[in-house]
Amino acid sequence: MTDPNSVGLVVPQTARFDQEIRLKSGARLPGFELIYETYGELNAARSNAVLVCHALSGSHHVAGYYDARQKKQTLGWWDNLVGPGKPLDTRKFFVVGVNNLGGCYGSTGPRSINPQTGKPYGADFPLVTVEDWVEAQARLADRLGIETWAAVIGGSLGGMQALQWTLAYPERVRHGIVIASAPRLSAQNIAFNEVARQAILSDPDFHGGHYYEHGVVPKNGLRLARMVGHITYLSDDQMAEKFGRQLRHGKHRFHYDVEFEIESYLRYQGNKFAEFFDANTYLLTTKALDYFDPAFDYGGDLCAALARARADFFVASFTTDWRFSPARSREIVYALLHNGRKVSYAEIDCDAGHDSFLLDAPHYHAALGAYLGGIAT
Amino acid sequence: MTDPNSVGLVVPQTARFDQEIRLKSGARLPGFELIYETYGELNAARSNAVLVCHALSGSHHVAGYYDARQKKQTLGWWDNLVGPGKPLDTRKFFVVGVNNLGGCYGSTGPRSINPQTGKPYGADFPLVTVEDWVEAQARLADRLGIETWAAVIGGSLGGMQALQWTLAYPERVRHGIVIASAPRLSAQNIAFNEVARQAILSDPDFHGGHYYEHGVVPKNGLRLARMVGHITYLSDDQMAEKFGRQLRHGKHRFHYDVEFEIESYLRYQGNKFAEFFDANTYLLTTKALDYFDPAFDYGGDLCAALARARADFFVASFTTDWRFSPARSREIVYALLHNGRKVSYAEIDCDAGHDSFLLDAPHYHAALGAYLGGIAT
Repeated sequence: MTDPNSVGLVVPQTARFDQEIRLKSGARLPGFELIYETYGELNAARSNAVLVCHALSGSHHVAGYYDARQKKQTLGWWDNLVGPGKPLDTRKFFVVGVNNLGGCYGSTGPRSINPQTGKPYGADFPLVTVEDWVEAQARLADRLGIETWAAVIGGSLGGMQALQWTLAYPERVRHGIVIASAPRLSAQNIAFNEVARQAILSDPDFHGGHYYEHGVVPKNGLRLARMVGHITYLSDDQMAEKFGRQLRHGKHRFHYDVEFEIESYLRYQGNKFAEFFDANTYLLTTKALDYFDPAFDYGGDLCAALARARADFFVASFTTDWRFSPARSREIVYALLHNGRKVSYAEIDCDAGHDSFLLDAPHYHAALGAYLGGIAT
Repeated sequence: MTDPNSVGLVVPQTARFDQEIRLKSGARLPGFELIYETYGELNAARSNAVLVCHALSGSHHVAGYYDARQKKQTLGWWDNLVGPGKPLDTRKFFVVGVNNLGGCYGSTGPRSINPQTGKPYGADFPLVTVEDWVEAQARLADRLGIETWAAVIGGSLGGMQALQWTLAYPERVRHGIVIASAPRLSAQNIAFNEVARQAILSDPDFHGGHYYEHGVVPKNGLRLARMVGHITYLSDDQMAEKFGRQLRHGKHRFHYDVEFEIESYLRYQGNKFAEFFDANTYLLTTKALDYFDPAFDYGGDLCAALARARADFFVASFTTDWRFSPARSREIVYALLHNGRKVSYAEIDCDAGHDSFLLDAPHYHAALGAYLGGIAT
């Protein structure tokens, strides 16, 4: 039985760019590949394209599935949002998902072969920034014949890319959709990233980032990094409700194996992630988060930094998100309004913390769907 | 020049207990030693004794110093609170500080020799609980001839011990002083502890807890554990104020060395701690935190659990403490009031997060000093 609201079976494509890209760090890549997926049809006016930017562990695989017999296991990470009749309606929009430069899902990254050495880049892959990702995505837009995006949308780190698009290419984005994001990381945000990085960098299997050559991966460091991360993705309330102090065996057993269900959950999440994600990509992505700061060149003045934007905006935050709290979204909204931008803002009551942006809380999807529905194509 | 408000040069003492202690886990220790310090004089009526319980990384060395030429470096961890003319005034009170069972500052713990093997206990040291600590402290009270404490005081995990004293020995505590504490850990609290434990347990130098025999210590795991911990001790606001996004070198340098000052701070704290603290003690202390739950045997009903208490109480919390928020202290206050206990409660406006309890914020010390000043001896 097919699901009429699903984009169905999807196949990723790869675009090769042979022109050198100069990164914000000053480093250069002689060329690169981006893996991407598209859903829906680009209209004749080429005015209905929407770019979906992914967050820390996301990918180009936004919607649909790769295997009809394993739909659930191969479902896109934002499938609840993207599809026919869904808030980001593929009957109306041509939706593009892309794995970022430095990623580990098929775009050029630390696992790719460094043409200068014939071996994987590993730690020699240059650090990339949100600005670099937008540059690379712009080349993909050119390749696809998309002069202007109807919208660029993302949550968390994806929201930073959506915001950056409106600054780097003010004329190429009509709507910036920035969800559960922040104009820059706080010291506490950086602190959590730093612990995650130190866990990876100090794993004996990291081998200075050249673990591929040693036939190992720093699984333990990556596992710890993900465990720390996961605590910040969930709200305190939700953890209390979901796990509380529930014991695995009903009583205290006085050992270091799993006693409380929350321990089991964290270990599971950490282990699962460490099985497939690349540690070098994790490292450079946390650095991209740390560095993002559009106000940096404006003496910290976010209003001045966002003056270039020409898009309309939809900004959303979640009440229980303590990683990027509503106050951080309000900073963005304030600076946009200061510049006379048209901004819709929704502060959504949802108990799922930062991860709320991935869920389909009714009020959230209704508000987002209403905004997307109003976009002219 | 001597400081008239200091207890001055102090020397720790050790008490040996040869009678077996049966722990909550069911394990037994054939005997044990506790290292402790005292300040002030026990009065003739033996009615002016105050027990200070330490938190995760604290010790028996509460006040004074060990070396007159190195006062600052050898100062007790709560010296700002304890001394002549200070809120816990040693002209009035006889103050006792004790390193808990399982500790690494001189009391019997994982570093001690296991009489059954002739080698350090290491991972064979049994898990101890807040209840066990109070049992051991009660033996020290007996030894010192203290039938009733004027007060038992502690912050964080120390506050849990103060609360437990009023439950295990209702007639032996006249005042329970519970600061920046909680009646039990939340799922999020346990989650942070679990990440810290996993960092230590998975360190290749941990050797299943028998690292002493290998001539190494799991420094890296302990360092990561402390870094995670430190994030939860400070408030988001304080981190922002103290470090913000301040760069070490004024610009982004695109590498994994220290870029932001907050990274430098965390690494320093982690490294310093890993130099001296024992990893097995860290592990078992986080478990003691996880297990503490006086309501466990009462179907989660804290009011029922605290019905045994006979003491008066002073409870304090700090507005920016997100590890043990004011709401957690209010749970304790509510349950005590429900049982007709006399409770003073102060919710202190202080920006230093959980660590506020170690500082001398004027309103905090004034409130605590006023309460202590009113205790009859």
